[in-house]
Amino acid sequence: MTEPAYDLLIRGGRVATASDVFEADVAISGETIAAVGRGLPGARREIDARGKLVLPGGVDSHAHIEQLSAAGIMNADTFESATVSAAFGGTTTVIPFAAQHVGMKLQQVLEEYHALARKGAVIDYAFHMIIADPTRETLEVDLPALIKQGHGSIKIFMTYDRLKIDDEPLLDILLAARDGGAMLCAHAENHGIISWMVKRLLARGYTDPKYHAISHARISEAEAFNRLIGMAALIDQPIMIFHVSTAEGAKVIRDARGQGLKVFAETCPQYLFLTADDLDKPGVEGAKWMCSPPPRRAADQEALWQALALGDLQTVSSDHAPYRFDETGKLRAGPNPNFKQVANGLPGLEVRLPLLFDAMVSKGRLGLEKFVELTATAPAKIYNLHPRKGSIAVGADADIAIWDPQREVTLSDAMMHDFAGYTPFTGRKLRGWPVTVLSRGRVIVADGKRSVEAGSGRFLARTGGEAAKPTGRLLPDMDPEQNFGATLL
Amino acid sequence: MTEPAYDLLIRGGRVATASDVFEADVAISGETIAAVGRGLPGARREIDARGKLVLPGGVDSHAHIEQLSAAGIMNADTFESATVSAAFGGTTTVIPFAAQHVGMKLQQVLEEYHALARKGAVIDYAFHMIIADPTRETLEVDLPALIKQGHGSIKIFMTYDRLKIDDEPLLDILLAARDGGAMLCAHAENHGIISWMVKRLLARGYTDPKYHAISHARISEAEAFNRLIGMAALIDQPIMIFHVSTAEGAKVIRDARGQGLKVFAETCPQYLFLTADDLDKPGVEGAKWMCSPPPRRAADQEALWQALALGDLQTVSSDHAPYRFDETGKLRAGPNPNFKQVANGLPGLEVRLPLLFDAMVSKGRLGLEKFVELTATAPAKIYNLHPRKGSIAVGADADIAIWDPQREVTLSDAMMHDFAGYTPFTGRKLRGWPVTVLSRGRVIVADGKRSVEAGSGRFLARTGGEAAKPTGRLLPDMDPEQNFGATLL
Amino acid sequence: MTEPAYDLLIRGGRVATASDVFEADVAISGETIAAVGRGLPGARREIDARGKLVLPGGVDSHAHIEQLSAAGIMNADTFESATVSAAFGGTTTVIPFAAQHVGMKLQQVLEEYHALARKGAVIDYAFHMIIADPTRETLEVDLPALIKQGHGSIKIFMTYDRLKIDDEPLLDILLAARDGGAMLCAHAENHGIISWMVKRLLARGYTDPKYHAISHARISEAEAFNRLIGMAALIDQPIMIFHVSTAEGAKVIRDARGQGLKVFAETCPQYLFLTADDLDKPGVEGAKWMCSPPPRRAADQEALWQALALGDLQTVSSDHAPYRFDETGKLRAGPNPNFKQVANGLPGLEVRLPLLFDAMVSKGRLGLEKFVELTATAPAKIYNLHPRKGSIAVGADADIAIWDPQREVTLSDAMMHDFAGYTPFTGRKLRGWPVTVLSRGRVIVADGKRSVEAGSGRFLARTGGEAAKPTGRLLPDMDPEQNFGATLL
Amino acid sequence: MTEPAYDLLIRGGRVATASDVFEADVAISGETIAAVGRGLPGARREIDARGKLVLPGGVDSHAHIEQLSAAGIMNADTFESATVSAAFGGTTTVIPFAAQHVGMKLQQVLEEYHALARKGAVIDYAFHMIIADPTRETLEVDLPALIKQGHGSIKIFMTYDRLKIDDEPLLDILLAARDGGAMLCAHAENHGIISWMVKRLLARGYTDPKYHAISHARISEAEAFNRLIGMAALIDQPIMIFHVSTAEGAKVIRDARGQGLKVFAETCPQYLFLTADDLDKPGVEGAKWMCSPPPRRAADQEALWQALALGDLQTVSSDHAPYRFDETGKLRAGPNPNFKQVANGLPGLEVRLPLLFDAMVSKGRLGLEKFVELTATAPAKIYNLHPRKGSIAVGADADIAIWDPQREVTLSDAMMHDFAGYTPFTGRKLRGWPVTVLSRGRVIVADGKRSVEAGSGRFLARTGGEAAKPTGRLLPDMDPEQNFGATLL
Repeated sequence: MTEPAYDLLIRGGRVATASDVFEADVAISGETIAAVGRGLPGARREIDARGKLVLPGGVDSHAHIEQLSAAGIMNADTFESATVSAAFGGTTTVIPFAAQHVGMKLQQVLEEYHALARKGAVIDYAFHMIIADPTRETLEVDLPALIKQGHGSIKIFMTYDRLKIDDEPLLDILLAARDGGAMLCAHAENHGIISWMVKRLLARGYTDPKYHAISHARISEAEAFNRLIGMAALIDQPIMIFHVSTAEGAKVIRDARGQGLKVFAETCPQYLFLTADDLDKPGVEGAKWMCSPPPRRAADQEALWQALALGDLQTVSSDHAPYRFDETGKLRAGPNPNFKQVANGLPGLEVRLPLLFDAMVSKGRLGLEKFVELTATAPAKIYNLHPRKGSIAVGADADIAIWDPQREVTLSDAMMHDFAGYTPFTGRKLRGWPVTVLSRGRVIVADGKRSVEAGSGRFLARTGGEAAKPTGRLLPDMDPEQNFGATLL
Repeated sequence: MTEPAYDLLIRGGRVATASDVFEADVAISGETIAAVGRGLPGARREIDARGKLVLPGGVDSHAHIEQLSAAGIMNADTFESATVSAAFGGTTTVIPFAAQHVGMKLQQVLEEYHALARKGAVIDYAFHMIIADPTRETLEVDLPALIKQGHGSIKIFMTYDRLKIDDEPLLDILLAARDGGAMLCAHAENHGIISWMVKRLLARGYTDPKYHAISHARISEAEAFNRLIGMAALIDQPIMIFHVSTAEGAKVIRDARGQGLKVFAETCPQYLFLTADDLDKPGVEGAKWMCSPPPRRAADQEALWQALALGDLQTVSSDHAPYRFDETGKLRAGPNPNFKQVANGLPGLEVRLPLLFDAMVSKGRLGLEKFVELTATAPAKIYNLHPRKGSIAVGADADIAIWDPQREVTLSDAMMHDFAGYTPFTGRKLRGWPVTVLSRGRVIVADGKRSVEAGSGRFLARTGGEAAKPTGRLLPDMDPEQNFGATLL
Repeated sequence: MTEPAYDLLIRGGRVATASDVFEADVAISGETIAAVGRGLPGARREIDARGKLVLPGGVDSHAHIEQLSAAGIMNADTFESATVSAAFGGTTTVIPFAAQHVGMKLQQVLEEYHALARKGAVIDYAFHMIIADPTRETLEVDLPALIKQGHGSIKIFMTYDRLKIDDEPLLDILLAARDGGAMLCAHAENHGIISWMVKRLLARGYTDPKYHAISHARISEAEAFNRLIGMAALIDQPIMIFHVSTAEGAKVIRDARGQGLKVFAETCPQYLFLTADDLDKPGVEGAKWMCSPPPRRAADQEALWQALALGDLQTVSSDHAPYRFDETGKLRAGPNPNFKQVANGLPGLEVRLPLLFDAMVSKGRLGLEKFVELTATAPAKIYNLHPRKGSIAVGADADIAIWDPQREVTLSDAMMHDFAGYTPFTGRKLRGWPVTVLSRGRVIVADGKRSVEAGSGRFLARTGGEAAKPTGRLLPDMDPEQNFGATLL
Repeated sequence: MTEPAYDLLIRGGRVATASDVFEADVAISGETIAAVGRGLPGARREIDARGKLVLPGGVDSHAHIEQLSAAGIMNADTFESATVSAAFGGTTTVIPFAAQHVGMKLQQVLEEYHALARKGAVIDYAFHMIIADPTRETLEVDLPALIKQGHGSIKIFMTYDRLKIDDEPLLDILLAARDGGAMLCAHAENHGIISWMVKRLLARGYTDPKYHAISHARISEAEAFNRLIGMAALIDQPIMIFHVSTAEGAKVIRDARGQGLKVFAETCPQYLFLTADDLDKPGVEGAKWMCSPPPRRAADQEALWQALALGDLQTVSSDHAPYRFDETGKLRAGPNPNFKQVANGLPGLEVRLPLLFDAMVSKGRLGLEKFVELTATAPAKIYNLHPRKGSIAVGADADIAIWDPQREVTLSDAMMHDFAGYTPFTGRKLRGWPVTVLSRGRVIVADGKRSVEAGSGRFLARTGGEAAKPTGRLLPDMDPEQNFGATLL
């Protein structure tokens, strides 16, 4: 008897890429996809996918895992809990952060996060390096070395005490990113405006969670986007703007892209499915819905959907930031905190894809190919994980989520696999659910059960790639021809 | 001995879709793609594609074939010559026109074009129905029936004597398109402005071909785009704007899309690779480069490339319009015509893909996936030929072009297979060429030789599809809630 | 005893110009203002203006007087009734139309209107020449001669059967205006869209006056503005866009001005104080509020006020178009017409200034200097009647309206002095009223009584002036340097 | 014999206001204008102004006089030298700064500047209060008291070490301005960008004065404008943006005004008549042309002229900042400084009006009325000095400049009356010159001679006035209706 041609065959499903949808079997050899087609020869093992969708596993390019906040709060998840949760939600690649705080050596930070991930991760991962202390050593020694080691993206914060990077050091970081060929991601909000709003709100006794939403004045977003884009244009450094929440913010991005600037941007489910009104709960309950930037208004949701449709925003990530609703997390300052004392962030690794699938595929908004693009292919391309990740393609890692498009699930806190203890989307009824999930050819979730060892996920070394390359078009500000020959880059 | 699993195997090439690029064999059963992968079982026949690219055959969604112009000039090609030419250039689907002129019955027009195509076409085809005489019978009887028969797109001209549709009948046509669910394509230029410019130019003795470029004042394009978009928005009817040539025109489209309007647009190689200066040749020679709208300036080329990158324009078609440079075509009015007497149009079915491949892939502008998207996948989707056409996908028609990415070819008039007798791109040296072309699994071109019978192409019935569906969002102009209950759609 | 220094002294009032407001006596010698100040020597006669405002008489640059419509309806006013009405409302200069219809010789048209005005007018006047039949004789013979005779402005209609000028002849007229140095004024609405809307509304039985408002789809305005501006830019001919009614229209104008184009624009009280809802009256009553373009929405009113504040719009005229609400006018087609059969237009010469004064001065919107600018100085400058008209300045014609800023008046049909028989603003309570009005030093209205002979108004010959001069900046479309030397202007 | 009616009569000149130009005598009684007209009765004294223009004295709303820079450099002028210089240039009102530095008490600062001005000023003056140390005492105690004492405007710097105000304290100052009803003026450039550019330029050895122009990257202006406007919109506080230098900056302002925001802006002669190339002189010579922001490019000049024409910018001030080209000023760091060590600023009080007159009136750009508006009436209105200052109007202060429109003057360092020792416009030939200047009825300059005592100028107490009033329209950010009732203003 001949050796079976493949190790695994997913049979009879409907396969989708960012470009196409078709019925086909998917054959896997070892860790990668070997073939997609009909009439494929046999395999050692088969999964029946008739009536199902066979999609690339999700790529979640923005998640906080086992990370200490600048305020000293450790988030609730371990790499194991977080990645298991991701896997249950159909996500097979995650990019959390290796977060430097002031005084830390970046190289050391990376080593620590590597160790945590090696121990716990069940899916593959890369890191964004958060730079909070752009010393000369960080920028000139550690950063270039780390980029070369495969950490092709940097994140900075323009707000938050102890994290925020002012304009001048931000230019240093942008230039270091450019020199190294890395993508620069940013949490872009105007720190002074938010700080001023908080001060005034608290002074007037507006302390409930709902006032958190107000404290992040809408213009603090559009303003910071505009400033960041200006600086990035000056340096000709591509940027990724994280978690766009307002219509005005989306417009700033569209305008910048229209000028030929290399500006990428994401939004998150909380900005597509929640509004500020969700924070308006009795007592401190609303704290569960607190994240930064905050959910906004229904009109912003519409604007963000349109920006996704138009390609102004290219990805939807979770910004998973799990804090328990107890004294270890949200209520660390006591049972009755003012909104400024509440840790910011929502869990989301597990529900990101089901929420989007329900809206985009089941309810028909933008469609299945676009769902694949926004949640898997595009982030994989932008962060240079493609073609290894992000698509059902021959030779790609067999990271696959098999979806039952008809399964109806009502979200509940209890069903979540992360350690946050709740989901802000609890009670929502969704149609479509990932029933079997594979990572590099291994079934890691099936029939609601995990079947993968902690620590079996792998680090994905990658450079900045195509998206992170400068355009080569200089502003007059930096153009030696217009500037008495002065060459500054 | 077992039966081979497949009829044909394209072995060892580098396959590209709009989403992914990967090394794989492509297996064909009958007329369709059966599998894509490695380790595929054997086939009756194999093509060695090592070192080659295996791409979907091009979809050229804008070509004039065996068509009588309003001025009474028959273009030089037959369906056979045109589609053979297309095939040599890697194109396997074409959408020419079934062109009504005033007084003609639309149903009859379609039958005549069907007959011509049935006789000559070597690749598959659909028709855009040109409406030049929007009588009640045309709009209320013939059009709905024809759309149902699978003619899901209409074209109108906003300029040209005997073809142009004024605003009021254009609204009738837009509404008929909406009622039938068809896409509305338009040649959008302001007729009055062009006519006025021509009159003044000729009156002052500016008769050389180069003045043709001037006669189509830039604003005649942006103006007509704006007007057409306004009317389409009023009706909530999706539109496709043909052959965008100016930066201002591209900006009008970007703005409209930014408002959520369903506006699609194309450009053509002549606007990406030629300029008005190409018309500036001694004597009447420049007539070879005359088309409408005319090639513009280098800055417009850059603006169009950017619009393609941003998705403001979605396709690049040829607008193939072959007139010989003799008394049967360009020089019909004699050896020394003024520019107004010269037939407008360029041949382009054959060179569209090689020109774009050279620029996008060989020279690196936008890349291979975007090349596939712009030239095959996107037009197939917009005109509802996808998933049958436009991609390398399981179950799709095996319309495949195998490209040698290293082959260098210098374009010459002699090597063209259409009947125009020249190419406006003669002398250009390109890298990358389609060496083997398949249509529905049949090799139709290989080793520079045609191997397909005239008339073996098939008509592709299609409805308007997703792209042609209204948005459902009404302007105040048509919103009964704001308009005393008046329902006009 | 010495001869008094002046003929008339307006003593103790508060004088306003577009620049300044101050307390001063105004001295008049003969027909002109001799001095403004304190401590002026005596005069033959004095008017006590203490507690009053002394303002320049209004300049109403858009009014239909004794004019036959294209539909054959003579409007209700004579030059006497209209100008008396204007005078009672504080207006001392009016620019009605000399309206050519198809087949009429323009020179003859002017002579007839001159005769009518000479017989009836009680205030000074100029004419805009309406061109409806741009024959070669009209444009090359009559028009240049008439401009030289002091008719420095032309009006065209882009809509209305039998009046509308298509794009190509419009370019001819724009060029003729440029050659002659005249201003080109336009009623800019898209004819085809309106016609199509009317057709559909009537076909569906929507015949009440309120549907008139819908029939003029909002985009028919912005579209026509954009098209006209494009053509005027091509020719480099300054234009005045009449009666802006929509926010979108105002935005098109702002954008054009921002590009450096010489685009002037006006609005009218009906667009600042009425909305489409005013047409929603039982039966045919709403016909009293029908004009073209129609009143729009409250948000448009705000947009227009802002456009006035920003200088995007420069004047507010009445567009006085008096049709009686009986069989001689609005109801000419019978007692129960559909909206298309109702003559378009509102009376407004008398109430324009009181409505604006109440809003701008009494209620404080934009202020007194801006009131003077919008209603007198700016139109006088744009139409080259300044410095003779439009301001309280030494040497200027003593056209003065003395306003009681405290007088409260409730508008009623009965109090109007024109022949329309009603005012669409009836019932409004206004604060501020012109109590004494002078034309060239003669008191023409005082104490609610007329004191002027019919026919004592004078024709104001004027060239196009500064506003009508081309910018000298050519679009690429017309720039010989970019166009192979072709000179088209 | 009767007493003469007036003290002084300026006879036979051509008078101009922002609205009108006319021939008239101007009569003065005491310190104010009593009448304007013909046939005025006699006066004690007469000035023959035949063939001359009689204009309001200029209002220069931005000048540094006897001011210590943050770097510790005292500028070269005393109040006497500066105001004499202003007077020779036709300017009769000036608004210099009372400049707080860190640690200074604002009240004390004002007293010191009052003392200096009282001693030296020969023309009337007000102060902008520079706030560099926004302590609680400054904002809550001193500032409100000082505003009430007639200091209706505040200035802040967004750049410069030791002066710059960060976003959060800037919001405090904006709110304090709003509470007090004062105008907020700003030097708006992005500090971090400039600082970063300087650092890199110097590090690479680009030390010549010309690199100063590069160090102020263009986007540092537009960025700061956008940020400031956003914060001002949040607070609903009117602002005046000083010395706009770039086309991009002007566009940001136009857009903001188009949204209904109360944003005022000025430019200065250095941005209309100089470019960065003027700094490109051998050795350190270019330092004479160094100011911040720097002169830009010819295209910016055009954009600024257009912005003035459109009303996007409302005033042209001098930003007089006189530093001698020696060790007391520009070369304080030695004979061979790098550009960062050179004091920034140009003298300009004296040449502002002649430069603008030559361009606007003699060469015809924008015209005489606009010249009066930009240089006198508009700044007087914006800073609430009108109607006392800024126009030739009855009752206004008799601050008058009599111009000989034909006099040709070639500017030279030697002819300047300030203490800077040079003018950056030396060698320019201008047509039009102020030959006689009056301040409150006193001739202060005539026949090239000063005739006024030091210290005879008077302080002009004024509130913020109309321009400084909030719009009353709140952004969603501050709207309690949208923000759970939270009231923050």
